[in-house]
Amino acid sequence: MVSFLLKSVLVVVAVFSISSLAQASDPDILSDFIVPVGSAIDGNLFTFNGTRAIFGSVIQKFSVTKVGKAEFPVLDGQSVSLAVLQFPRRSVNLPHTHPHAAELLFVVEGSLEVGFVDTTNKLYTQTLQVGDLFVFPKGLVHYQYNSNRNELATAVSGFGSANAGTVSLPTTLFATGIDDQILSKSFKSDIATIRKIKAGLSP
Amino acid sequence: MVSFLLKSVLVVVAVFSISSLAQASDPDILSDFIVPVGSAIDGNLFTFNGTRAIFGSVIQKFSVTKVGKAEFPVLDGQSVSLAVLQFPRRSVNLPHTHPHAAELLFVVEGSLEVGFVDTTNKLYTQTLQVGDLFVFPKGLVHYQYNSNRNELATAVSGFGSANAGTVSLPTTLFATGIDDQILSKSFKSDIATIRKIKAGLSP
Amino acid sequence: MVSFLLKSVLVVVAVFSISSLAQASDPDILSDFIVPVGSAIDGNLFTFNGTRAIFGSVIQKFSVTKVGKAEFPVLDGQSVSLAVLQFPRRSVNLPHTHPHAAELLFVVEGSLEVGFVDTTNKLYTQTLQVGDLFVFPKGLVHYQYNSNRNELATAVSGFGSANAGTVSLPTTLFATGIDDQILSKSFKSDIATIRKIKAGLSP
Amino acid sequence: MVSFLLKSVLVVVAVFSISSLAQASDPDILSDFIVPVGSAIDGNLFTFNGTRAIFGSVIQKFSVTKVGKAEFPVLDGQSVSLAVLQFPRRSVNLPHTHPHAAELLFVVEGSLEVGFVDTTNKLYTQTLQVGDLFVFPKGLVHYQYNSNRNELATAVSGFGSANAGTVSLPTTLFATGIDDQILSKSFKSDIATIRKIKAGLSP
Amino acid sequence: MVSFLLKSVLVVVAVFSISSLAQASDPDILSDFIVPVGSAIDGNLFTFNGTRAIFGSVIQKFSVTKVGKAEFPVLDGQSVSLAVLQFPRRSVNLPHTHPHAAELLFVVEGSLEVGFVDTTNKLYTQTLQVGDLFVFPKGLVHYQYNSNRNELATAVSGFGSANAGTVSLPTTLFATGIDDQILSKSFKSDIATIRKIKAGLSP
Amino acid sequence: MVSFLLKSVLVVVAVFSISSLAQASDPDILSDFIVPVGSAIDGNLFTFNGTRAIFGSVIQKFSVTKVGKAEFPVLDGQSVSLAVLQFPRRSVNLPHTHPHAAELLFVVEGSLEVGFVDTTNKLYTQTLQVGDLFVFPKGLVHYQYNSNRNELATAVSGFGSANAGTVSLPTTLFATGIDDQILSKSFKSDIATIRKIKAGLSP
Repeated sequence: MVSFLLKSVLVVVAVFSISSLAQASDPDILSDFIVPVGSAIDGNLFTFNGTRAIFGSVIQKFSVTKVGKAEFPVLDGQSVSLAVLQFPRRSVNLPHTHPHAAELLFVVEGSLEVGFVDTTNKLYTQTLQVGDLFVFPKGLVHYQYNSNRNELATAVSGFGSANAGTVSLPTTLFATGIDDQILSKSFKSDIATIRKIKAGLSP
Repeated sequence: MVSFLLKSVLVVVAVFSISSLAQASDPDILSDFIVPVGSAIDGNLFTFNGTRAIFGSVIQKFSVTKVGKAEFPVLDGQSVSLAVLQFPRRSVNLPHTHPHAAELLFVVEGSLEVGFVDTTNKLYTQTLQVGDLFVFPKGLVHYQYNSNRNELATAVSGFGSANAGTVSLPTTLFATGIDDQILSKSFKSDIATIRKIKAGLSP
Repeated sequence: MVSFLLKSVLVVVAVFSISSLAQASDPDILSDFIVPVGSAIDGNLFTFNGTRAIFGSVIQKFSVTKVGKAEFPVLDGQSVSLAVLQFPRRSVNLPHTHPHAAELLFVVEGSLEVGFVDTTNKLYTQTLQVGDLFVFPKGLVHYQYNSNRNELATAVSGFGSANAGTVSLPTTLFATGIDDQILSKSFKSDIATIRKIKAGLSP
Repeated sequence: MVSFLLKSVLVVVAVFSISSLAQASDPDILSDFIVPVGSAIDGNLFTFNGTRAIFGSVIQKFSVTKVGKAEFPVLDGQSVSLAVLQFPRRSVNLPHTHPHAAELLFVVEGSLEVGFVDTTNKLYTQTLQVGDLFVFPKGLVHYQYNSNRNELATAVSGFGSANAGTVSLPTTLFATGIDDQILSKSFKSDIATIRKIKAGLSP
Repeated sequence: MVSFLLKSVLVVVAVFSISSLAQASDPDILSDFIVPVGSAIDGNLFTFNGTRAIFGSVIQKFSVTKVGKAEFPVLDGQSVSLAVLQFPRRSVNLPHTHPHAAELLFVVEGSLEVGFVDTTNKLYTQTLQVGDLFVFPKGLVHYQYNSNRNELATAVSGFGSANAGTVSLPTTLFATGIDDQILSKSFKSDIATIRKIKAGLSP
Repeated sequence: MVSFLLKSVLVVVAVFSISSLAQASDPDILSDFIVPVGSAIDGNLFTFNGTRAIFGSVIQKFSVTKVGKAEFPVLDGQSVSLAVLQFPRRSVNLPHTHPHAAELLFVVEGSLEVGFVDTTNKLYTQTLQVGDLFVFPKGLVHYQYNSNRNELATAVSGFGSANAGTVSLPTTLFATGIDDQILSKSFKSDIATIRKIKAGLSP
């Protein structure tokens, strides 16, 4: 009986934590900040140093280091997050959307080909140099590509949400199990082609 | 001189209209409603009858009839819109997202296979009967499919925005001119396959 | 002691549930969706089939079937709900307001007399045919009436909130116990008339 | 020609003003404040002295002096307004709703009977003394009554919107022209009683 | 074991309460109101009488009596609060900001010198008489001063948030322990002057 | 007459532009993006290259390069902005607030002493290394200081608003003309000390 009780108590805590994460939204909060359960309230609460290793790291494929609510819990309610994007030569950050925020990208090393498509199906592209910024409006499909054969590229992106969210489109469409027939009708293609793409993207 | 002046005046009106559409947002308005420029303020302002023809119409391919701010201007500021979705047998409403709203779909005729993918790449599917509702959360990729070989299907969908917006993914990815190389890298495929899909989707 | 403890635990759960319902608000959520406590996370979570019986049902008086957060908990945070309104011949959906949302009504069967009053006390009315839509702006008093002597009428309404709320005015004013004297002064009437109306509306 | 042009110009100004008022909403503004068209930007812009006469005035019937966006335009975007309510002995502020804001009432003279009804049709009442506050939640029907036979009562109310809006229910229901039959069905009363109430409330 | 359990339960309650306070935000709520944990739901829940003593009280220094979410918990979610400001002769409400709301001040007794500074560093000042209102836009530095040598002054202020928050600048800058060197560089002053001001403001 | 007309037209344009800037707010927009008046709609609209000169520049005193709505107009409605902060050795970004957004700072070169004070007057400080992030919650007083005698420091900050706004406190308090007496009372200091600080901060 007592152990059953203990379980109940833990369930309550777990349920609460999940729900707490889920309910949090981005509007102004009434307090100065939201203290994650169990955190000490001092300067460390507002500090994130999981990104120190980025400087000087050597990467083999495109890599994104997000600093949002999941990684840095005190961002909950502050409506802001950042990400560092590292592009080896000839690497791509494949087409994706952020459901909860626009992205303001700042190129700090190398150069990038970027593009997005608006809801009228118009493509906007640009070649960015070091020091340039580009904004990808909220919810629209976009990509970045380091077309350079020799140089790396690095960007810092800001988002107006503590959790911008990411929908990676090749994965979402072809590696989650959507029925071949629905995909072949949707892409006006044959099932063999759909399966070929699925095979390339399977984990 | 006078004709130059006249031009100036018209420019002012045009600029205003564009900007007015663009700036409108979905939060509560301070007035009861927003009167579109030039509208009489009577019961007709709040009535839309462009959908009368839907009842009894025969369709050959999937068709969506939206009633949002663009079609029914007084919805601006009211944070709601509706759409009627008509599916001939074996037709699909291809994978897409709505950047500004969740969709609550209500099947009023026939049956539908539906699905969406969340930001952790998990696919959720369901078979819906007449009278069933299904919610597609805001900003996520989703589709509907009438798999029936003999019957039509019809649904009415509600959205919590006067302009839900639609990003059609096959078109956005393969029919807007995104570079073949970026797409082949993104879909881990070859350029021939990308071009084959592009050809099928070209208008 | 243990049973006291158990009670405490249940109190915690109950308190949490109440507060969870109460605190939820309609702005964008940071997660894809909010999982109600104890729900499995699969396609059924996003499906509601409590409305299947509507199709083919025979009703004797005006009936509204709401599908909002209370009936379909995963709508919490998705800012949308729907309702089906069924009107026998010569029945009325009496004057009411929705404190949290505008209503976009779509007539799918029969015809309806509708009206609302804005905050300057101007009445807007319309006669709607099958296929027509009408918007009742947020927070304003409105009604619908099937004046037809022979035919039913049915409408589907969309709301830009998971919980539009309803304030039924005859009930609110005359069947909740507001003092006769306050009502007679408010309606510039005598106490006998107030009591007569109260009697008609008493449950 | 020139006079036609002049007319066009004035139409542009008028259209702009209406739309400007209508589009303004209550969320945070990006500027410090919104300058009404044509205003000098100095300390007077932020000052309202149309309420000086209230102190020492003698009133014969219930009177409300609002200070919102309509009276004090720089409140647009600041999400706050105030009102002074003056009650002669035995006078009532009849049942009404504010569609855009809750009301926090502060009794500064005399005493008041107050009440509101929630969306489950529960009535909450209270007798307030000088110095007491009472909150009427957003969108709900409420009233105040000075039941004292000898003393005046005065209150200051705050609202979390620059335009709270007011729906006066006796007037909205019985003095705007809603059809007698719809009202008699709604109030489960006879047409004679409806007409009697209408006559008392006609202007 | 049982006492450990009991502790766990209490921890859960405590955690919940803190988090509940912290997560609450000012947007519209989906319910009519939020019931604080453990409160009876009757008219008293909506009544605050902690301010009765203000009327007739004699004060020796500037005093502010806030009625916000902390003092009157049911204000949570209603987006409004009030405060009573009492100024003895020649007293000042020192420069401060409210991070979450604009302030609409209403002078009900005496007169006040008021001022605020916008983000372009422009100072706006005014002398207010009984019955005047003045708005201090959201987030800007402002003060009030009763310069009169003989008379008291009293004001009632409304805020469009249940928790406007207050940042008192002399205290924040000089009485919280910010390093002398940082302050002397910031105020382009010497360390002796900084220490002199700190000494005057130390508690 | 014609020239009078011309003036009227220009006034309309001017009025419109001011009001357009002023009314813009940070909630979701209903369109994909807002096109500034007169802009071509191509990839350049979404590109900002006014920051190219930052890389390699030599600075003599603390310098902030903002990229918000004022500098990059298409950010209007996208709820995000960035800034580059450059600190020569032993330089300070003096105490200030951002009324409209939290700041998420990322140290990309050197090290920084940072701090902020919450509304309970508690000071939080930290020493940041290259690669560290720190969040300054919305509306609170904060500063950064490069205490190093030899090295520069550089940071990139993200904000969840297209216009975070800045209130520089030494300037706001002592260089905008607030009356000496009000300041001496507020800082519990003498007029000579107030004037000394004012002299140091006068432009």
